[in-house]
Amino acid sequence: MTFDAKSLKYDDKGLIPAIAQDHVSGEVLMLAWMNAEAVQKTLDTGKVTYWSRSRQSFWIKGESSGNVQKLVDFRYDCDRDCILVKVDQTGPACHTNRRSCFYTAVRDGETIELMQPET
Amino acid sequence: MTFDAKSLKYDDKGLIPAIAQDHVSGEVLMLAWMNAEAVQKTLDTGKVTYWSRSRQSFWIKGESSGNVQKLVDFRYDCDRDCILVKVDQTGPACHTNRRSCFYTAVRDGETIELMQPET
Repeated sequence: MTFDAKSLKYDDKGLIPAIAQDHVSGEVLMLAWMNAEAVQKTLDTGKVTYWSRSRQSFWIKGESSGNVQKLVDFRYDCDRDCILVKVDQTGPACHTNRRSCFYTAVRDGETIELMQPET
Repeated sequence: MTFDAKSLKYDDKGLIPAIAQDHVSGEVLMLAWMNAEAVQKTLDTGKVTYWSRSRQSFWIKGESSGNVQKLVDFRYDCDRDCILVKVDQTGPACHTNRRSCFYTAVRDGETIELMQPET
């Protein structure tokens, strides 16, 4: 069936969460948000494109930092209200220069930092 | 540092997205939502507990279906506005009886079903 970006379910701000996962290691790199146009741009260009809620503008991941996400596979969930993009990630995905944004764990009630920024 | 569930960033409905990932295979199983109390229950009990937006109640994953998620590791992201739980998933995670909710891909503009329900 032909995919229509508008057929996904967006929240009251017109956004849908998108999880980015390293297509080789399976590591979950980050979660950001897309609107229908960002979904279409991601599929059309192969460059993962989010909607920046803080800047209220399209955000082609890595466009300024060089840490691009090349789309490898685009998936959505049973409720059509969440996206999973499998990506080929150049460099760190996180703005803190860590590979993944999920570098803090809670263990036995304490927070632990699992990753250091890349140099 | 001692972790305080209230220190995470919740949206205007008091919710935060939580990604569940198989702790062995790395497969992304589902995304659901937690409030601060669900976060605390998850950490206290080791049973991953969401907030059901449709039922407006706590949802101990698998409590009725038996497809429980045992917490293996609890992580949050750099912006403190998304959670990643690594889980030991019994049975399928998806209510459609598939292992993962992300069973539909978009390839060359067409939707493709990647997984069948488990029998």
